[in-house]
Amino acid sequence: MSKPPISFEILSKDGETRAGLLTTRRGIIETPVFMPVGTAGTVKGMRFEVLEDELDARIILGNTYHLWLRPGVEVIRKCGGLHRFVGWERALLTDSGGFQVWSLGALRKITEEGTQFRSHLDGSLQFLSPEISMEVQAALGSEIVMAFDECAAGDAPPEVSRQSMELTARWASRSRARFDSLQSDSSDEGRTEATHEISGAQALFGIVQGGAHLDLRRESLNRTTEIGFDGYAIGGLSVGEEKGAMWRVVSDLAPALPAAQPRYLMGVGTPEDLVEAVAHGIDMFDCVLPTRNGRTGQAFTSRGKVNVKNAQWASDSMPLDDSCGCSVCKRYSRAYLRHLIVSGEMLASILLTHHNLAFFLDTMRRVRQSIRSGDFINFRREFTEGLNAYEQDKALSNT
Amino acid sequence: MSKPPISFEILSKDGETRAGLLTTRRGIIETPVFMPVGTAGTVKGMRFEVLEDELDARIILGNTYHLWLRPGVEVIRKCGGLHRFVGWERALLTDSGGFQVWSLGALRKITEEGTQFRSHLDGSLQFLSPEISMEVQAALGSEIVMAFDECAAGDAPPEVSRQSMELTARWASRSRARFDSLQSDSSDEGRTEATHEISGAQALFGIVQGGAHLDLRRESLNRTTEIGFDGYAIGGLSVGEEKGAMWRVVSDLAPALPAAQPRYLMGVGTPEDLVEAVAHGIDMFDCVLPTRNGRTGQAFTSRGKVNVKNAQWASDSMPLDDSCGCSVCKRYSRAYLRHLIVSGEMLASILLTHHNLAFFLDTMRRVRQSIRSGDFINFRREFTEGLNAYEQDKALSNT
Repeated sequence: MSKPPISFEILSKDGETRAGLLTTRRGIIETPVFMPVGTAGTVKGMRFEVLEDELDARIILGNTYHLWLRPGVEVIRKCGGLHRFVGWERALLTDSGGFQVWSLGALRKITEEGTQFRSHLDGSLQFLSPEISMEVQAALGSEIVMAFDECAAGDAPPEVSRQSMELTARWASRSRARFDSLQSDSSDEGRTEATHEISGAQALFGIVQGGAHLDLRRESLNRTTEIGFDGYAIGGLSVGEEKGAMWRVVSDLAPALPAAQPRYLMGVGTPEDLVEAVAHGIDMFDCVLPTRNGRTGQAFTSRGKVNVKNAQWASDSMPLDDSCGCSVCKRYSRAYLRHLIVSGEMLASILLTHHNLAFFLDTMRRVRQSIRSGDFINFRREFTEGLNAYEQDKALSNT
Repeated sequence: MSKPPISFEILSKDGETRAGLLTTRRGIIETPVFMPVGTAGTVKGMRFEVLEDELDARIILGNTYHLWLRPGVEVIRKCGGLHRFVGWERALLTDSGGFQVWSLGALRKITEEGTQFRSHLDGSLQFLSPEISMEVQAALGSEIVMAFDECAAGDAPPEVSRQSMELTARWASRSRARFDSLQSDSSDEGRTEATHEISGAQALFGIVQGGAHLDLRRESLNRTTEIGFDGYAIGGLSVGEEKGAMWRVVSDLAPALPAAQPRYLMGVGTPEDLVEAVAHGIDMFDCVLPTRNGRTGQAFTSRGKVNVKNAQWASDSMPLDDSCGCSVCKRYSRAYLRHLIVSGEMLASILLTHHNLAFFLDTMRRVRQSIRSGDFINFRREFTEGLNAYEQDKALSNT
């Protein structure tokens, strides 16, 4: 039997919750893991050195849609794939472009063949299909490739969600077929030598859709596992549905995903969401919250969210989060960070993004530790209570 | 006799060129030195850790005008001075605000008492005088305070330049008087313990004005040295005059500045300007070029300036400057940097600013080394020839 492209070992289990090791051709990733988002080949405002050294991020995301439009496949192939192009030798997961194209809304037109849309950069007419997405991701040479899917709105009625789910299933088969032929014709720019454990090829993950409808989700799961993938993702959440609907889907679906393979909840979420989803058996996450909110002046801390622009911090010499060990909290005060944000200084985005990612990654480290030591339930309760501290302070001062 | 606030020792001399050690209450600075500009309490896009660790900047600039308007003196005093506010424990030089207010052009009104102007932030009416500038700089607690001066346009006729120069001389006396009283009433937020060598107080530098007129410059020099300062600056250059006029002033004036004290050429310049001015005996420089041009996609290299946006770099895997040892050149390619700039990514500004500052600071390191080893003349020739390499390549490819 041929070797798999990735291997996944579960080290500890506590109810549905699990801590594991995901071995890729570019490094071992401890799960549950949060993957910082590097849309256009950069985690906005972060140097790769910092992601490696201080934050020890083992895997980051790249976006097929953005990189395909700019700088384009030709440039990235010439430069030897995305790792070499951007200077990051650790693992990469690339999304398929399906979600980005879906986000364009009225600008897109979906057919059986694929999606026609206008580029957000120059309005030019573009066409993306399962086959093209697989070709782009082969050129990028990421460790984990995502199938090309179609996403329905979070509040879509059953018949719309069904059509979307069925199209996703057909596209999943086409993704699988094109992916396999690309692997066998050496189009994968990230290919490495095999080890005793893994093959050095790219891995392909399937995506379960079906909106907020549990029956459709179950059907999607069956159709996706029938095709067979190296890991399974839950897509189409955090797209406008009620928070309750998201948790109904996650709590029903996550434990039903193949237990021996990594489970990835796409695009989620806040620190409390991550911990909650881990409780349902999710292993992998990505989200723009720590980076995007960092750029707009919002910090995630162990006591809850902080709006750094707030006048109350104007001469506050304390760090953002005094229980955070990141290099931003070691050196910079709330007063200074507020000054930078108010002054529109780039350093504000740099430092807040850094702190937020440090907080997310450190939270996941603590999650993993607590699972391995059989203490996840306590960790989850204390962590979640901590996140409410600022809100509670406010409530108290109003009584 | 009481101790001076700074001490300056000349280690090597080669013609007018000198290499020295400037001892401040927050560290020893090897001269000639380039001081990165940290306008609003941040060298735009740079973390202080990088300035300290990799770039080993010993002194940076802060701008009185900007910091006075935002976050204001009260906030900075509450936070314990500018060093503590921003998290930088090495030396700071603050300008006086004179040049910034002058730059506002039509928005300002100059009287004997001081300058009335409208804030660039909110249009509010503000007033800055020698006394207020000294008070703000005491609150900032910088190691080196600049006298409050008035700058004339580079092409101003003699009578305008004379009036401006005479006003600068009267403001220099008032700066000196207010500075001294602030030092004796402990208003200086950056005060340290005395050492065997220096007092722990702030130092005050005078500024020589007089436009492009050598007689006025000489008169300004006499009046400024009569008052007596810890160092002397040449102001009012790089403000629209012909490049030839600047060099006439520098070559005439620099050697005439008191030899035992540091000589600072304000707001200059390109790498070739720095080396040229060092040849005339200048010890200190500041300029926004490496930071500002970094943000707009221009890199300074040993072979000349590079427009990183240029399509010729689209799939070029070489570093910006293969003879540069900075961490940007070690890791990132021209192709990637171009992609970042073209995509409007913040990381472009971060990496190009870093490289440019590294190039300026490394150039000054090599300048100092060559002076100490008696080889400055050769260094200057080779360095300047190198800077023309790209231009020569272009000229050759056109023949």
